Amino acid sequence: MDLSSLTIPLLASVLAIAFVIYLIFNIMKQNAGNEKMVQISKLIQQGARAFLKREYTYVGIFVIIIAVLISVAPFLTNVELGWETAVAFVIGAIMSALAGYIGMSIATRANSRTTQGAIDGGVKGALGVAISGGAVMGMSVVGLSLLGLIFVIFIFKGNPSIVNGYAMGASLVALFARSGGGIFTKGADMGADLVGKVEAGIPEDDPRNPAVIADNVGDNVGDVAGLGADLLESYVESIIAAMAIAAGMGIVAGPKLQLLPLLIASAGVVSSIIGVIYVKVMGRRNPQSALMGGTYISAILTAIGTFFIVKFHGAAFDGYSIYGPFYATIAGVLSGIIVGFMSEYYTSSKYKPVRTLAEDSQSGAALTVTGGLSVGMASTAIPVVVLAVAVLISYHFAGIYGVAMAAFGMLATTGMVVAVDSYGPVADNAGGIAEMAELDPKVRNITDNLDAVGNTTAAIGKGFAIGSAAFAALALVSAYMKVADVAVADIKEPHVIMGLLIGGMLPFLFSSMLFKAVSRSAYKMIEEVRRQFKEISGLMEGKAMPDSAKCVDISTRGAIQGMLVPGTLAILTPVVIGLFLGKEALAGLLIGSLITGLMLGIQMANSGGAMDNAKKYIEEGNFGGKGSDTHKAAVIGDTVGDPLKDTVGPSINILIKLMSVISLVLAPLFR
Amino acid sequence: MDLSSLTIPLLASVLAIAFVIYLIFNIMKQNAGNEKMVQISKLIQQGARAFLKREYTYVGIFVIIIAVLISVAPFLTNVELGWETAVAFVIGAIMSALAGYIGMSIATRANSRTTQGAIDGGVKGALGVAISGGAVMGMSVVGLSLLGLIFVIFIFKGNPSIVNGYAMGASLVALFARSGGGIFTKGADMGADLVGKVEAGIPEDDPRNPAVIADNVGDNVGDVAGLGADLLESYVESIIAAMAIAAGMGIVAGPKLQLLPLLIASAGVVSSIIGVIYVKVMGRRNPQSALMGGTYISAILTAIGTFFIVKFHGAAFDGYSIYGPFYATIAGVLSGIIVGFMSEYYTSSKYKPVRTLAEDSQSGAALTVTGGLSVGMASTAIPVVVLAVAVLISYHFAGIYGVAMAAFGMLATTGMVVAVDSYGPVADNAGGIAEMAELDPKVRNITDNLDAVGNTTAAIGKGFAIGSAAFAALALVSAYMKVADVAVADIKEPHVIMGLLIGGMLPFLFSSMLFKAVSRSAYKMIEEVRRQFKEISGLMEGKAMPDSAKCVDISTRGAIQGMLVPGTLAILTPVVIGLFLGKEALAGLLIGSLITGLMLGIQMANSGGAMDNAKKYIEEGNFGGKGSDTHKAAVIGDTVGDPLKDTVGPSINILIKLMSVISLVLAPLFR
Repeated sequence: MDLSSLTIPLLASVLAIAFVIYLIFNIMKQNAGNEKMVQISKLIQQGARAFLKREYTYVGIFVIIIAVLISVAPFLTNVELGWETAVAFVIGAIMSALAGYIGMSIATRANSRTTQGAIDGGVKGALGVAISGGAVMGMSVVGLSLLGLIFVIFIFKGNPSIVNGYAMGASLVALFARSGGGIFTKGADMGADLVGKVEAGIPEDDPRNPAVIADNVGDNVGDVAGLGADLLESYVESIIAAMAIAAGMGIVAGPKLQLLPLLIASAGVVSSIIGVIYVKVMGRRNPQSALMGGTYISAILTAIGTFFIVKFHGAAFDGYSIYGPFYATIAGVLSGIIVGFMSEYYTSSKYKPVRTLAEDSQSGAALTVTGGLSVGMASTAIPVVVLAVAVLISYHFAGIYGVAMAAFGMLATTGMVVAVDSYGPVADNAGGIAEMAELDPKVRNITDNLDAVGNTTAAIGKGFAIGSAAFAALALVSAYMKVADVAVADIKEPHVIMGLLIGGMLPFLFSSMLFKAVSRSAYKMIEEVRRQFKEISGLMEGKAMPDSAKCVDISTRGAIQGMLVPGTLAILTPVVIGLFLGKEALAGLLIGSLITGLMLGIQMANSGGAMDNAKKYIEEGNFGGKGSDTHKAAVIGDTVGDPLKDTVGPSINILIKLMSVISLVLAPLFR
Repeated sequence: MDLSSLTIPLLASVLAIAFVIYLIFNIMKQNAGNEKMVQISKLIQQGARAFLKREYTYVGIFVIIIAVLISVAPFLTNVELGWETAVAFVIGAIMSALAGYIGMSIATRANSRTTQGAIDGGVKGALGVAISGGAVMGMSVVGLSLLGLIFVIFIFKGNPSIVNGYAMGASLVALFARSGGGIFTKGADMGADLVGKVEAGIPEDDPRNPAVIADNVGDNVGDVAGLGADLLESYVESIIAAMAIAAGMGIVAGPKLQLLPLLIASAGVVSSIIGVIYVKVMGRRNPQSALMGGTYISAILTAIGTFFIVKFHGAAFDGYSIYGPFYATIAGVLSGIIVGFMSEYYTSSKYKPVRTLAEDSQSGAALTVTGGLSVGMASTAIPVVVLAVAVLISYHFAGIYGVAMAAFGMLATTGMVVAVDSYGPVADNAGGIAEMAELDPKVRNITDNLDAVGNTTAAIGKGFAIGSAAFAALALVSAYMKVADVAVADIKEPHVIMGLLIGGMLPFLFSSMLFKAVSRSAYKMIEEVRRQFKEISGLMEGKAMPDSAKCVDISTRGAIQGMLVPGTLAILTPVVIGLFLGKEALAGLLIGSLITGLMLGIQMANSGGAMDNAKKYIEEGNFGGKGSDTHKAAVIGDTVGDPLKDTVGPSINILIKLMSVISLVLAPLFR
């Protein structure tokens, strides 16, 4: 491809980063609140930093080992891997880690400033800071990932087998951020709740609870860094899949089609910035409609931009019209919106499923849990049919290139989606700080209001993350089959069937390991909190401070230890299957895990979301309200649902993408 | 094929039926116990009859509609369906229904005789009657299904496109028996427990509880008729799949290979009879080892028989050795044993998973449930790998014919497996009768001992049912692709991907519907029991009888209503996909649902079994014993697990088989 054509995407990435810098200055000049608020915020910052430091140390070890293996691969076998792919891989990992670091640092600084914003300027003041905090993560994700990608394309002249390594680096960081982060956040949450609320009878976010800081850190670890790394990965992978597929399309259409996703990404950057500004301007009236409006505006602007980009920079190919990729992209955008809306339908207390679930809780916890599982299972139907139709449409208009472009269509506005999603934990933390700093309940009311809005957007974001992950993985698998020269992967062939069966099983095995890791981490936290309540004299009376750092450390260790085995499994399985059972079996493996992973991912996210909101609906005074037996049943449901929606479900996204990108990078090995 | 060669299988089926008649005489001449015992047994018999009558009425309507559609199909399209297939279909349905009717009638008559046997002859006396009761179901399943099949083959000269209809008939009855039966049994169970044990505080099986009879009927409906129809279907389908595949193998090898499964089935009949006799003779010492011993003996005898059958009646084909089918069969037998053993490992309180789960229950119900889900998910790993390897081995030795033979290898001893499984509910009912008739606690101890043995064998039977269902479905899909001329079903093609995605989703949607049906049925039961406690004066004092028939009626209605929508979905989806998206998409659909169905089936069976036995382990006095908070948590876990293992999980077996057999029968339509 013509490297000079990278100018526009390069400018877009620089624009995104400039916007991040502007937002950071904007946030940092806000009042961080009184001494106590600053102190609490500092504890959360320290906790977040401690987690990231440990996480990145382990990521670093994995990155080095894998980079060395990729570098020496040409000496062991005669494949087209080498130090160049290793360099791209390392840069991908660094860019994702850097985005996570910046996003977390600012999100944990925006929290007390959001609280102070609520004191000084009410909803408007709080929302402005919170959305800026979220947007730092969102725009860092797209800006840095795009910048790194362009750099890699530039220095390695767009050679796909090298550039693919970049996505693998992003994927490895996402594994640690999502699975590790998910274990961290739920281990801390369950530990804090089970001893604090249940045993000691103190309220949520009570400063006497040693695990509260870890719990607040966890919100950022899971929903800022985790989600950001997850979507960054999907974003990069769908671009790279489209480029890898386009690479084989001849010297006329090929370069143009390779450039297309980068140009659309540029349109997405500009649209996302406009979306964020819209939320900041309009948010003073109605936060909910501002957030939704901003999201839709950036999607519509991106769609319009895509039309003109395709018109002027597209190319007809393989019998498909020049507008084929446009239709495919639109199919992706629309299916993303529908999948997101279905998540809202099944998890919001505005609609029937959650209300029925709350009602069913009157007959005890068992019916809450089976009802919650059932809601999640039912919620797979429409999104899956929509995704399947989108695959068919995008393929119809632009072949497998279209599938990759549809995936990217869902992801072009990643900047805005992550901004809206990361806003949630900032608002949540702001509420926690208001509670811990014992501020006027009015302040907490404002932050609670913003937090509730964040819950809806988070549910939509989760549906979106799963849908786009499945689409991105499908694009990667298509690219893998193309690069590995898989002429046919026939489901009649026993190797393919074997791959499908084993692949289908992996998300179940992976899930069971993550469940165990969360429980183990929660148990350790419970013991530690009990110990501190017993041994630190004056703690329960509020006269002594708890040792929060110790709790953060326990969650961090639990997170890293808990994800090493499943992570290694995810990395090694495709390699082993590809080498020993062949490239067709590996294709089966990837598709098998994509199928069960997609279903489990949707089910778990929505089961968890529905049980969470059924509990909240009861807490609003329905079916007996707080403290009733119905509420107790719903609390059990929520505790079951929490690791489903925040640890296991999101991690499955990563599993299917990681295995697919590894297969794509190592495709020459299996040829 | 040479129809005279059907003599041996015909004799085997007659032998099985003769053995059934002998067993029935043997049971009926036993003392049925005192007046009260007879009265209770009569109520259970009446309830079972009422359920079967309603079920078979609805089955009849479905059968007639489908038979008419099949008969008129040639006038609408030019496919090779017609009245002959419809006749085979009706005969298949009748044979399965008849086996279920005989099995249920005798099982519900063997119950009080087992109780009396315990009074008169201790363990030995009780076991003898209970295993005979179970064996009536087991040998009816193989005897009648084989007889009907031979009849159909004989009158239609072995034409596969007609004979396939027979399997579809068996499948339709299995749908009603498994899904309807599953909803019946768990709706009744949950209703009886939630009002009786929890609200009214009366013990299990208390005669004052109006739902107790329905609960006891449910044990038979689910574990006798349901399991029997399920395995009968798999049994017939794996034979038919092998025959359909063999039909295209030329005039030399073809007929021989078509006959092979029937001859092996004959060996299986004889081996199963020997196995049952072994249990009756050896059971006086140790019931557990007698049951396991009988199962292994019949498997080993069948394997030996298979060797000689293949040696003298087999044929080399398509480059495979004459012994190819033997190796394939052995791969099936071995994988069945391993899958069964893994079920025991994950669900028996002798091993670590259940003990850890019981320990985790100390931290509350949420951790019991997540732990239980996690155990089930982990339990998918080894069985799936074993099945995948068995597919590879059987394919290696005998192509897709080998896959069908491996499936049949798991199922050749169906007579014995069903006998051992159906023994469980007879022993369980015997215990219920001892309780309700207020007999000496010693009697209950004996039946409880037999019941506990039954629980282990039931867990193994469930694992076995799922493994064999998946294998049978795979054989059917292979046969479908052969008959429908699916040259290639490439997972790169968007139609196949669409099929895989939608197929993968169906077991989730189907499960959510069944969950809802169970809850709805349980709610209605709860209301009715509450009403009777309130309105029937003297009931709680034991002076008046409850209206048990009303409760049976509620469960029956709930069962039929609850399975109509998911059942229709299962029947129509393959037809719609096949007609509108094509035969390749349908192949994808079947494989997709097989993958997620297999995983969910194993997970649910083992999650449910593990939570059930964790509760029992705590009741034995561990971690606080009965009445402790740990026990309460475990009871919630068990209530969540019950519909998983007894309704939803087993119904998924049927879903994947039913869709596959419909596709096979209608394959000419999609060609």
